[in-house]
Amino acid sequence: MRKNKMPVDYTLYLVTDRGILKGKDLFSAVEEAIAGGVTLVQLREKDISSLDFYNIALKLREVTKYHGVPLIINDRLDIALAADADGLHVGQEDLPVRDARRLLGEDKILGYSVTTIEEAVFGQTNGADYLGAGPVYPTGSKADAAPPIGIDQLKRIKDSVSLPVVAIGGIGAANIKEIKASGVDGVSLISAILGSNDIKEASGRLVELWTK
Amino acid sequence: MRKNKMPVDYTLYLVTDRGILKGKDLFSAVEEAIAGGVTLVQLREKDISSLDFYNIALKLREVTKYHGVPLIINDRLDIALAADADGLHVGQEDLPVRDARRLLGEDKILGYSVTTIEEAVFGQTNGADYLGAGPVYPTGSKADAAPPIGIDQLKRIKDSVSLPVVAIGGIGAANIKEIKASGVDGVSLISAILGSNDIKEASGRLVELWTK
Repeated sequence: MRKNKMPVDYTLYLVTDRGILKGKDLFSAVEEAIAGGVTLVQLREKDISSLDFYNIALKLREVTKYHGVPLIINDRLDIALAADADGLHVGQEDLPVRDARRLLGEDKILGYSVTTIEEAVFGQTNGADYLGAGPVYPTGSKADAAPPIGIDQLKRIKDSVSLPVVAIGGIGAANIKEIKASGVDGVSLISAILGSNDIKEASGRLVELWTK
Repeated sequence: MRKNKMPVDYTLYLVTDRGILKGKDLFSAVEEAIAGGVTLVQLREKDISSLDFYNIALKLREVTKYHGVPLIINDRLDIALAADADGLHVGQEDLPVRDARRLLGEDKILGYSVTTIEEAVFGQTNGADYLGAGPVYPTGSKADAAPPIGIDQLKRIKDSVSLPVVAIGGIGAANIKEIKASGVDGVSLISAILGSNDIKEASGRLVELWTK
């Protein structure tokens, strides 16, 4: 776990998906989202070459660094290391969290996806800095998503650990207040931000709903 | 580049492909190949989760270590590091060879795929320990393979560098002697070994053709 590190603001955590951008430029989209209030960005890519993933990561790192927002890489420790990203997020089908921590070093942020209390406690014990819990609600953003865990399970996960917990899956303006009431530290979003016509406005509205 | 390291025998370099094993167990197949004379093994996996890739790498590492044959991981630096493989092989669509060397450290073997003299010299200058040159002949083992470079270009590549060069692509019993006559250090094979009914016998015959 990170010791004596700068605190991370998990409030509005954007996960990228170029598939729903309909040709819109990823880097401009992320800049708009940050302008609207996104506090953390995760680059998620599937089915592209390592070189393409690396080049996108390098460019996105410039954007996020310029705006002072941490960049997390999904799944690929090699890309996180090569692009010197701020951290890595691993799921249950990725490198084991313990190996990820060993290779990532202590200075980088490590996130871990969980659906159960057992996984949450395991993540906390094995080097995760924060947990992504979900999907809370049904979601169309991830083809391979597990069944929704619901708000009660989200609360149980948050109560089982001392780590920051970010809720993910089917979250948007309609339910973000319910999520906040559960006591978690932030929300992770894809389509509620990147799928909107005005990305900055959508991000700003979500931050407002969370804060007020 | 590796300094003062144990020399690597590039003579018969097996690249894995579970797709042509028709359900046969990968680990037994590799053991048979090693028994027949394979001197180096590259684990190549596409379209599987990082966790599955990692678990296969860990198991294959036990097999290769037991038999004293180096294990190289294709493309994925994270898997190579996590499984503590002996090395990594990167192609033109993978992490840049220079970044791969930086993150891999000096002690691991780093291979680099090339088709031109320019790429060969670039690889030598940027940290590669050996070059994979090809495809020399037409091949069905890699869907995304480039057009064949031919035996003359293979020779030119070998003459342009001081690194060991391994020929790849469409090589088998019918043309291995022509490859050897070109002056390269070994052959890289997939189907000529894994696609045969008797893997040990096929490997043994190829070694014999190379040696005599």
